[in-house]
Amino acid sequence: MARILTITLNPALDLTVRVPHLEPGEVNRSQALLSHAAGKGLNVAQVLADLGHSLTVSGFLGEDNQQAFNALFARRGFADAFIRVPGETRSNIKLAEDDGRVTDINGPGPHVNDLAQHALLDKLDHIAASHDAVVVAGSLPRGVSAQWLRELVLRLKALGCKVILDTSGEALKEGLRAGPWLVKPNAEELSEALGHPVSSVASQVAAATELQTLGISHVVISHGADGVNWFSRGTQPLQALPPKVRVASTVGAGDSLLAGMVHGLISGHSPEQTLRSATAIAAMAVTQIGFGISDALQLVTLESGVNVRALAQE
Amino acid sequence: MARILTITLNPALDLTVRVPHLEPGEVNRSQALLSHAAGKGLNVAQVLADLGHSLTVSGFLGEDNQQAFNALFARRGFADAFIRVPGETRSNIKLAEDDGRVTDINGPGPHVNDLAQHALLDKLDHIAASHDAVVVAGSLPRGVSAQWLRELVLRLKALGCKVILDTSGEALKEGLRAGPWLVKPNAEELSEALGHPVSSVASQVAAATELQTLGISHVVISHGADGVNWFSRGTQPLQALPPKVRVASTVGAGDSLLAGMVHGLISGHSPEQTLRSATAIAAMAVTQIGFGISDALQLVTLESGVNVRALAQE
Repeated sequence: MARILTITLNPALDLTVRVPHLEPGEVNRSQALLSHAAGKGLNVAQVLADLGHSLTVSGFLGEDNQQAFNALFARRGFADAFIRVPGETRSNIKLAEDDGRVTDINGPGPHVNDLAQHALLDKLDHIAASHDAVVVAGSLPRGVSAQWLRELVLRLKALGCKVILDTSGEALKEGLRAGPWLVKPNAEELSEALGHPVSSVASQVAAATELQTLGISHVVISHGADGVNWFSRGTQPLQALPPKVRVASTVGAGDSLLAGMVHGLISGHSPEQTLRSATAIAAMAVTQIGFGISDALQLVTLESGVNVRALAQE
Repeated sequence: MARILTITLNPALDLTVRVPHLEPGEVNRSQALLSHAAGKGLNVAQVLADLGHSLTVSGFLGEDNQQAFNALFARRGFADAFIRVPGETRSNIKLAEDDGRVTDINGPGPHVNDLAQHALLDKLDHIAASHDAVVVAGSLPRGVSAQWLRELVLRLKALGCKVILDTSGEALKEGLRAGPWLVKPNAEELSEALGHPVSSVASQVAAATELQTLGISHVVISHGADGVNWFSRGTQPLQALPPKVRVASTVGAGDSLLAGMVHGLISGHSPEQTLRSATAIAAMAVTQIGFGISDALQLVTLESGVNVRALAQE
């Protein structure tokens, strides 16, 4: 069991609403309306907790609607290192209709000022070094710059932390320059951050080499149902092809893959087993409305369905 | 200053979301998303608090999303006599678009079982009698029958309470049979509860007489912008016509009218002044996005614009 810290700078309160058919301009009665604490870093933390690790969770949390978050931390036994900021954590409403149509309405979230950003850095200075890995995941809230994220990664590295970064856009671009230990973009996110396409295997090999010169040990490029490519410094790149599964929801699949990779690497599993297990955990997330290790036996079955092989580079 | 208890059996967490234009099936970014604790009894309580009274608030509250409610109680100094029930208080989402279109999505709320219903009656047995008036307002949650509401009113009456009832449908029909002290239906609600139309003045006089035989002292029939008719046992019916105001939102207008009536009656104001002030408070709510006594000077101006007169019965 490892001690792992996940940092969610921009968590969200997810409100999932079921309506038979959305009628704009009318009063719609929903059959179910459930809120739950979400955000990439918190999703990763939940999967890592399922895998038996001890979690500390941090980031910024709006103080006016934190109940679902506090309940999650208590229920999962997470050490709470979040900085509270004035206002409400953003709410993301998902309106799911009977015909499968989903309408997302994403809230703006609180503005995080310099004081709160300093408070987080101070807290991390005290607690980060005692963790075996630090996952920084998700988007940036209003008020937090991509440059600040780069400094956060550098600061964590200076504390001796293995930093795992999962973000996109300008934040990923800046974060990559700080040379985290592991990154897990999809091809589109990586292409945007590097400024050139990375769709072919050859371009991915080149991109991984480019990232390795920045000090990044592990480059995990996810392709959804088409699998995962893993470029690790000084070793043969690996490719994993997931088993075919019935898709219930892809929510949390990427976070599950990341949690699986961190789990295998921190636990000292072989590269082949690490990638196999992470791919199976992501496939398992896809079979659920939620995510997480709900069924250990199913996971074993899914693992045996993962095809891990050396990445063909011709 | 009086001590007033309001009972909200089915409160709601209102989420007001601003989107430029709602695109079903797409990811919509909202400019603002704010939650606030709501429900008719809680709205009445806030206006009564603005008018200087001391409030106790009760009813059923889902324990999983009560933060906004607890914050309201603390901010307004309300004594909290709510019974907590498992699950989440219903959320009512209001999607407001730039062109003025509003889409409502109303959640189902928790199921309130017998145990919780007993717990509320027990609590009210202990606290209700020390209040000068008890307001029971709003709809019934799942699991609570209209018969139970009638018994609640009878029980409060047996404790010596002046009971004010503001509800609709089957709950109003049953509640009327218990003979509360004051009711405030609109013509449509009253017509539905009595089973015959009450649109003409003559039919309202007949309806008021019918209700008075059930022991109801005050029948206040609201007609929105067209004013209020007040039938009080043994006195000449009064009619108030509100001043013309610019409508910002009618949210809380009926609750404001009710609070104003309770305020005047409990404070021993003259009938004419009671109705004038209540009508002005309701008009003031209409001029705001929210409601409440935000501007005492404006209230004086609005009061002087209310036309109170004997209801013409020809």
